[in-house]
Amino acid sequence: MPILEKIEIILNAVGRNVPETVNGRPQVAYMGVGKYQPVGRKAATPIRTAADYPANGDKRVTNLETALRKCGLRDGMVISSHHHLRDGDRVALMALEGASLIGVKDLTWFPSASFPSQRSAIALMEAGIIDHIEGSMNGPLGDYCTQGKMRGMGVLRSHGGRWQAIQDGEVHIDVAVIAAPTADPFGNCDGSHGKSACGSLGFALADSIYADHVIVVTDNLVPFPCVPWQIQGNNVDYVVEVDSIGDPAKIVSGSTQITRSPDRLRIAEFIARFLRDAGIMRNGFSFQAGSGGIALAFVSYLKQMMKQAGVKARFVRGGSTKYLVELLEEGLTDYILDGQTFDLDGVRSIGSNPRHVATSPFTSYNYHGKGNFASMLDAVVLGATEVDTNFNANVVTHSDGRLLHGIGGWQNCLASGCTILAVPSFRDRIPVIVDEVTTLCGPGELIDVVATERGIAINPRRQDLIDTLKGSTLPIRPIEDIKKEVERICGGKPRRARRSDKPVAIVKWVDGTVLDTVWQIA
Amino acid sequence: MPILEKIEIILNAVGRNVPETVNGRPQVAYMGVGKYQPVGRKAATPIRTAADYPANGDKRVTNLETALRKCGLRDGMVISSHHHLRDGDRVALMALEGASLIGVKDLTWFPSASFPSQRSAIALMEAGIIDHIEGSMNGPLGDYCTQGKMRGMGVLRSHGGRWQAIQDGEVHIDVAVIAAPTADPFGNCDGSHGKSACGSLGFALADSIYADHVIVVTDNLVPFPCVPWQIQGNNVDYVVEVDSIGDPAKIVSGSTQITRSPDRLRIAEFIARFLRDAGIMRNGFSFQAGSGGIALAFVSYLKQMMKQAGVKARFVRGGSTKYLVELLEEGLTDYILDGQTFDLDGVRSIGSNPRHVATSPFTSYNYHGKGNFASMLDAVVLGATEVDTNFNANVVTHSDGRLLHGIGGWQNCLASGCTILAVPSFRDRIPVIVDEVTTLCGPGELIDVVATERGIAINPRRQDLIDTLKGSTLPIRPIEDIKKEVERICGGKPRRARRSDKPVAIVKWVDGTVLDTVWQIA
Repeated sequence: MPILEKIEIILNAVGRNVPETVNGRPQVAYMGVGKYQPVGRKAATPIRTAADYPANGDKRVTNLETALRKCGLRDGMVISSHHHLRDGDRVALMALEGASLIGVKDLTWFPSASFPSQRSAIALMEAGIIDHIEGSMNGPLGDYCTQGKMRGMGVLRSHGGRWQAIQDGEVHIDVAVIAAPTADPFGNCDGSHGKSACGSLGFALADSIYADHVIVVTDNLVPFPCVPWQIQGNNVDYVVEVDSIGDPAKIVSGSTQITRSPDRLRIAEFIARFLRDAGIMRNGFSFQAGSGGIALAFVSYLKQMMKQAGVKARFVRGGSTKYLVELLEEGLTDYILDGQTFDLDGVRSIGSNPRHVATSPFTSYNYHGKGNFASMLDAVVLGATEVDTNFNANVVTHSDGRLLHGIGGWQNCLASGCTILAVPSFRDRIPVIVDEVTTLCGPGELIDVVATERGIAINPRRQDLIDTLKGSTLPIRPIEDIKKEVERICGGKPRRARRSDKPVAIVKWVDGTVLDTVWQIA
Repeated sequence: MPILEKIEIILNAVGRNVPETVNGRPQVAYMGVGKYQPVGRKAATPIRTAADYPANGDKRVTNLETALRKCGLRDGMVISSHHHLRDGDRVALMALEGASLIGVKDLTWFPSASFPSQRSAIALMEAGIIDHIEGSMNGPLGDYCTQGKMRGMGVLRSHGGRWQAIQDGEVHIDVAVIAAPTADPFGNCDGSHGKSACGSLGFALADSIYADHVIVVTDNLVPFPCVPWQIQGNNVDYVVEVDSIGDPAKIVSGSTQITRSPDRLRIAEFIARFLRDAGIMRNGFSFQAGSGGIALAFVSYLKQMMKQAGVKARFVRGGSTKYLVELLEEGLTDYILDGQTFDLDGVRSIGSNPRHVATSPFTSYNYHGKGNFASMLDAVVLGATEVDTNFNANVVTHSDGRLLHGIGGWQNCLASGCTILAVPSFRDRIPVIVDEVTTLCGPGELIDVVATERGIAINPRRQDLIDTLKGSTLPIRPIEDIKKEVERICGGKPRRARRSDKPVAIVKWVDGTVLDTVWQIA
């Protein structure tokens, strides 16, 4: 789909310039938290009949190219993939290269996230096979986008926003390609067993339910039934066996080591003490922490404090890591509700412990459901590339304007009872606290605390937290104070990104409205 | 909805008279197995927003009447319930009586099945609260229907057909009421734990996904998260706590004792030997058997033969009973795939054994999916009220024309590799093998074997089975021979039902077309 010559830009409710139309599709500008009221009914797939599928349940075809042909892949279609295998995934490129062999053009690639190992997708964009990527672009693909080289516009969504967009019919997936660490010939899939085990397959669930055609690719075919069936074969058209769906060494995240940086350890400890002193750490509480070095250290500190206080959590959410698994196995939490599995301890646990439960973006994050898990969390610890003095935050671009990260579940998690950003006060001598974020990903009204190694800033909207923490030994300071100190250290404010007036991607809010724009770098 | 004055009757592909319109809705007459090609897309619910649901996930309201009011229940709506609690269920009547208190009229009650203990629904039909029942009517409610007293027409569907009808938008559920043996305040539900535990909640799954409004009623509220969540709270609007959702003594089926009748034991043994001699009983095979006395005895005989032969099944399907649980626990099958749980051993097993897996009508039976489990079974053993010499069978009416039974999964199971009807050759001195079944529920081309105490008839379409069984010591006989013998014993053919020309219910085929009609008794 070619970009229209002239894209109208309008101002949304938080003063950000956003395009009215993206890839030919009209957009709704962000209206504020909880303000947009969706209308209409959910998307729905064509009604199929069992008469058209093999009675013995064997849906295998010889290779992925054949499966794509049988799905009727043609120019301009939307092809989806998912990132459970992270930087080790081989299946998404296999599918895109299969499409290239068939000779189709102008595809929209709709991954749940793309990774550096998939950089050869750039060649497919140059060749016109892929028009654009809708989905998180980590590293080189994001960089390519902010260089203005992608023909269509990027659309960045949270995990929950991706479900919402599919469910609401904003994105119609023609062909979904699902990498399955275990599958049966009927198409039932499980991520928690097999040589390429990655844990939950939740990110592929929406694709399996809403795509017109669904292909499963596996390197561990088992006789029917594949149990558990995280993906149901009743939604699957074809099954393809391959030697390898990915590189097991890269399937688990690289970022599952506790930080050794004294500054970051300090942030982690601050946050654990904050939860304790704020009274959030109490019997039956819940929290979410991801895979970053600070988050892992935070879990480690909090665990000690929970033990000392004799406190047990009702549930914790990950990205699961060995640190969360230890909490479960030591009886410090009743459940892990797992969105994605980050290390081998997590994979082992989810494959064997019934209290380590696979979730999906539907249960955890979809804003256009009847509620979701994210708002039930007592606290969540997240990162950011930038945060401003109104607590607005950025997670996708750097201060130079380059798009290098995806949103993940970050936006969805902002709904928690106490949202804490754990950020070093500067990186590479560039201050993290800024006057205005390069790209707005999270409205400040949802961010309660910014924790740096130089002090903890509580959002003035959370007078309740400020009151509770009075008398705490924690270094609680106004965010402006921390900012000024850091600017003195770094020799001033960060240089603003030099950008053109050409939008290259948009950041969607969890309700599908357009929160901000990513611009081509000048 | 009043019945139209004049209902056009047409002849379907198997020569049955069926109405063109039912309750104001045009129907498609049955075209033959696998002949009807569905068009269009699946049904879809309104898009919701988390902004309209409590952020802390607490969806509790004080009582069911309040919940029904909040759902906007009004005249003419469709209200659904499910039958996991079987004859012990209290929730469906609670909901219908709640509707009566609100003062709404002309409801369609859409249960997955109704039972004798719900006979007070007749008073609600007399009072105009309920217009008609769409769903299985066991006992008095079916009898009431065939007396021509129900205002609207009954619609009988299989479990898979019920999913298909909801999914395809033939039935739009306005309010679903789900009885949950365990639930949390967010609406996650589990059937396998709690004082009213019933096992799987699969029959309520379609309702939870496709109904506009969903109410969960529980007598065992647990803190979030309720694990496993067989029903997802993200689809639930309100949660109601009550003292009791049902009578645990009646929740499990009454029919889970092995028959003591020598004739029926003989049938059971014949079938087990048939599977063995036909080579169907082999390593990795699969079978389904339900809760009837013959089916249980069959499992018991087959188990001995499997042990003797050193054969292990890959999976078995139930209604699960202690006999299937024993197979699992003794290593004679890898899995139980469980559609509904018939006894307390089944409940215990599904709540604790990860190889005892809850299924749903979607995975097991939905004909308008991309295949389903039913056609992957090597063999299935079913009952019938009547069977004719062309192997057509009836499961809903007796030869006097009275509607007394539901279809259950019976129609869906006919897709198996070898479908065996286990029937006594006569009941109450009325022959079971007839010239023409009173009501056609299953086309003879799908029924491979009829096993009676007087011999086994193989459908002539299954020459392969006839050939394989040549030389077997089993009493394999033409069905006409058995029929003649029985007629001699019983003093002739059964008297045909005396019926009027007023249709009171239809029997849907698994694809939503109309297979036959149930007529008012004259």
